Amino acid sequence: ADFQPKLPPSYLGQPYLFLGNIQPDLQSGVQQQMKQVRFVGGDTMNYWIRDYREDLLSAIRNWDFLLINDAEARMLSGEQNLRRAAQKILDMGPNTLVIKRGEYGAMLFRRDSLFMVSGYLLEDVFDPTGAGDCFAGGFVGYLAERGFDLRNGDFDVHELHRAVIYGSVMGSFCCEEFGVERFRTLTREEIDQRFAEFRRFTAF
Amino acid sequence: ADFQPKLPPSYLGQPYLFLGNIQPDLQSGVQQQMKQVRFVGGDTMNYWIRDYREDLLSAIRNWDFLLINDAEARMLSGEQNLRRAAQKILDMGPNTLVIKRGEYGAMLFRRDSLFMVSGYLLEDVFDPTGAGDCFAGGFVGYLAERGFDLRNGDFDVHELHRAVIYGSVMGSFCCEEFGVERFRTLTREEIDQRFAEFRRFTAF
Repeated sequence: ADFQPKLPPSYLGQPYLFLGNIQPDLQSGVQQQMKQVRFVGGDTMNYWIRDYREDLLSAIRNWDFLLINDAEARMLSGEQNLRRAAQKILDMGPNTLVIKRGEYGAMLFRRDSLFMVSGYLLEDVFDPTGAGDCFAGGFVGYLAERGFDLRNGDFDVHELHRAVIYGSVMGSFCCEEFGVERFRTLTREEIDQRFAEFRRFTAF
Repeated sequence: ADFQPKLPPSYLGQPYLFLGNIQPDLQSGVQQQMKQVRFVGGDTMNYWIRDYREDLLSAIRNWDFLLINDAEARMLSGEQNLRRAAQKILDMGPNTLVIKRGEYGAMLFRRDSLFMVSGYLLEDVFDPTGAGDCFAGGFVGYLAERGFDLRNGDFDVHELHRAVIYGSVMGSFCCEEFGVERFRTLTREEIDQRFAEFRRFTAF
């Protein structure tokens, strides 16, 4: 209970921050240490939504994006319907909401736009553990690589959509082996090939 | 049990045929009456898959496409994984398989291609009864309107993908009111607007 994450100095100036699923006040504490953040968001779970609701609400008020699954979105908003759930969550602070639906894919909501994609259809789902975190890594990693700046009014919303695809790609690779084993051998070329497959599989 | 559908003469020369979910031998009987069919397919259900398997297999052997839901695809193929299920079903005859997943969307499989789309995200799902049939109507109706000819080696597979989108559009409208009530007032413009929304919501 006395855990207070203190970031090493080399982290403090980073512009991109993804807050993994820990107690919301700790998430806020990490964010406060990083004064130069330009793009910040995180994950949460049923336990914090139910028992730490106020802490969670004050944490996400300062986030650019929230990345949760459909059950969490329903629980956080109190709405069964995902479109209405999303509108309520966007009122809580984040201007970008990604809702993950496991094998069924993911959706990205903003006030003025919506993006939806089906999940990558694997031949074998070996172990889905960690797929959500890998999704987050792909999502933020793509945007960081691109130098994406949400706070620049001029940004291209399709960059966020492509980030959802990279998230889906990384989540799908995660399911192919136990834990994060697949990432020991995964190449950038394989990642980009799967991204290209998503283009083919969704073109009409 | 003596029901033998006999088509009125004006139907016999039609080039497009969708066989609704009835006993497979009756589906075959209808198909045999239509000698000029260029694009034929149909639907089925758990009951025929389990208790009329041989009749069903000989019916679909002569179909261009099969349009079923994910549970039916698993039951028909004996495979849990949809990618493998689809490969087995394509071996049964139809060269085009559409698997519907309700609110999660639809997929179209061919030997050399795959298309996936999420379901349209409704604000309220009033009554999903009949959505699968409306999907079928949108799917075949679009292709008929376009004069689509699958048996012409030159066809554009994206026409099939667009047909899945029109199917999804019609299925989504079906859910907005009881039964087929929504179609009493639905306009072509509304249909095409929703198709355009699908383009926006899936672009990356």
